[in-house]
Amino acid sequence: MIKIAVLGYGTVGSGVVHVLETNKELIAKRVGDSIEVSRVLDLRDFEGDPIQSKITHNYDDILDDDEIKIVVEVMGGVEPAYTFVKQALLKGKHVCTSNKALVADKGSELLKIAKDKNINFLFEASVGGGIPIIRPLHTSLTAEEITDIKGILNGTTNYMLTKMADEGADYDVVLKDAQAKGYAEADPTADVEGYDACRKIAILTSLATGSFVDYNDINTEGITKITKTDMDYAAMLGGVIKLIGATHKEGDKIYTYVSPVMFNKEHPLAGVSDVFNAIFVKGNMLGDAMFYGQGAGKDATASAVVSDIIDEARNLNSNLGYTWDETKLNLADVDTMASSYFVRVKGDVKDAVKSAFAGVKLIDSVVDGETAFLTGEITGSELKSKTASFDVINIVKTEL
Amino acid sequence: MIKIAVLGYGTVGSGVVHVLETNKELIAKRVGDSIEVSRVLDLRDFEGDPIQSKITHNYDDILDDDEIKIVVEVMGGVEPAYTFVKQALLKGKHVCTSNKALVADKGSELLKIAKDKNINFLFEASVGGGIPIIRPLHTSLTAEEITDIKGILNGTTNYMLTKMADEGADYDVVLKDAQAKGYAEADPTADVEGYDACRKIAILTSLATGSFVDYNDINTEGITKITKTDMDYAAMLGGVIKLIGATHKEGDKIYTYVSPVMFNKEHPLAGVSDVFNAIFVKGNMLGDAMFYGQGAGKDATASAVVSDIIDEARNLNSNLGYTWDETKLNLADVDTMASSYFVRVKGDVKDAVKSAFAGVKLIDSVVDGETAFLTGEITGSELKSKTASFDVINIVKTEL
Repeated sequence: MIKIAVLGYGTVGSGVVHVLETNKELIAKRVGDSIEVSRVLDLRDFEGDPIQSKITHNYDDILDDDEIKIVVEVMGGVEPAYTFVKQALLKGKHVCTSNKALVADKGSELLKIAKDKNINFLFEASVGGGIPIIRPLHTSLTAEEITDIKGILNGTTNYMLTKMADEGADYDVVLKDAQAKGYAEADPTADVEGYDACRKIAILTSLATGSFVDYNDINTEGITKITKTDMDYAAMLGGVIKLIGATHKEGDKIYTYVSPVMFNKEHPLAGVSDVFNAIFVKGNMLGDAMFYGQGAGKDATASAVVSDIIDEARNLNSNLGYTWDETKLNLADVDTMASSYFVRVKGDVKDAVKSAFAGVKLIDSVVDGETAFLTGEITGSELKSKTASFDVINIVKTEL
Repeated sequence: MIKIAVLGYGTVGSGVVHVLETNKELIAKRVGDSIEVSRVLDLRDFEGDPIQSKITHNYDDILDDDEIKIVVEVMGGVEPAYTFVKQALLKGKHVCTSNKALVADKGSELLKIAKDKNINFLFEASVGGGIPIIRPLHTSLTAEEITDIKGILNGTTNYMLTKMADEGADYDVVLKDAQAKGYAEADPTADVEGYDACRKIAILTSLATGSFVDYNDINTEGITKITKTDMDYAAMLGGVIKLIGATHKEGDKIYTYVSPVMFNKEHPLAGVSDVFNAIFVKGNMLGDAMFYGQGAGKDATASAVVSDIIDEARNLNSNLGYTWDETKLNLADVDTMASSYFVRVKGDVKDAVKSAFAGVKLIDSVVDGETAFLTGEITGSELKSKTASFDVINIVKTEL
């Protein structure tokens, strides 16, 4: 029997207990031993719930119990998770976590401690919920130079964008709907401004490049400027707008950003609807691949956490090699990256647009009093200088 | 330096050499050691090609070389691959292969030898080409009871079905086109009759269930009966027809089959076009997930083979636990499985159809002189008995 402790009995924590209980037998068969949750750390009590007998309010009960080999951190947030996880690793306990904030901020240090101690710090659930992506990047796409990652990494915003596209509803309406359904929080900033996706693409890029990517360095734009009118244009152009976290390698330059992108409807990411997530990966040998599934949800996320528990239980005495250099990767300036853009500016200024943008493609306006166009490939700097003389309504990156 | 040998310098074999060469540095970094192809077994000579210096026509040169730790079998077919692989494993050499026929037929025995010898027999490229699916099933979806696998596992037939749907072309025309493009062989039987997909779903099901699934037991239907008219009906019904290899678990019963299925256009598999493959997996905790990518192609398939080489190089002295019981799994009779069907019968026989099928949905005929309808959920046996009195044109399973 392998004893584990769970830090935090919230949505994911109770999901982990539920998955371990529901699939107890097959998990024991796959590990070659049974897994038992021996302690659960939470500030609250859960009277009447069978979990109560395992609840402790004192982390030392877990830290000082040498029989506990694996600590499952599902509290969220950097502190006190960071302190708890570091202490556990230093005591020689394996740790797995669903906490993207912790991994993005402190992953380098925690991975190094795990390596030094010949144990594991795993975080499959920190990106893409139930979708296997961390492990495939580390163990399957190993023959690849990854040139592109494009992920729909945030279920809340994907739900909102899907609803805007399908129902012609405007941003404020779908935000209220998402909040009512529990998909968006009362303060939706982390989702709608792209901060959540930013941490996730930082983690994926650190893994793919083998060097620490600081999420603070990532150019991040959310979906708050996207309107029903933009969606109408997208539909007219045979596209859909998705919020993606992306990394693009061009020679030695690595561009990483979070941004809405108007994809052609034929692109594999275009069909990813509602709260589903997907991560599209291009390798220099592999070509295109995509991983798709539930990006959130109690049981799906818990399933990914439990896959880490199983991996750790199978490898109690060996480090699985998850690591990245602690030296910060210098991301290239996204303003030097060539992209295509959909642009809306005020007024009927077709001639001015044509003379400013070589190879521009003008689009029939869906509302009066504006000019809409597709730029062709230009750098972010060129876009800024060329649009400076116009009264810009909105700009969306395109892959049409 | 880790020395390896490649058996067969055909498309995949030369691809393996190409991938190892192109990504030499990053592969060495990920393994922690360099990989060198020291011998290549082929009946042919390749004068003028740098590979010639490594070519041998005598397998003993590889078998007797104790410095060769990993043997890469990419010849295809059961013999002589089976004999060669078994000999290598018994000599304590790791083996990886892209050979679905070998794995489906002899996998149980070869996995057992590898386990006994504490080495590895890996086969990521045997299903889904470059798509990571074998490793995710073994290492990522470990917390799951897999209830459904539905895979577009054959690129040739998916190319043909896509072209039939998009261009309104008929079967014979797209087959000739696929042959001209090199996607289909002169004798296309293995692809169009579903035999290729059958071996692949046998492998996936053996892994997911942990018990050997004999491909001979799998009810297999190919695409030869699918016509342009069926495609027109599918389009009218908001669907597309795909050839899938599937496994469905219902209580203790496991149904495995290869069959064309008419999917609703919103289903993730519906958007998988041309030679792309995808494997849709449903777990009892995870919900829906999908893995998508290039199912064939020299470099993509070779990339998967090289990911196995890397895994073996990283684990020269440990077995990674890939295994399934040698005892044959008893698949349930697919005639007892409930499904929905699209049916076309000769004549205007609406009343007879209505009285035979409770809850039937009649469809406007797209050609004269026939009656088309959707059965609700019925078993295969019920379908057979109920359609016995009609002059059936075609029947396609549906998920609309």
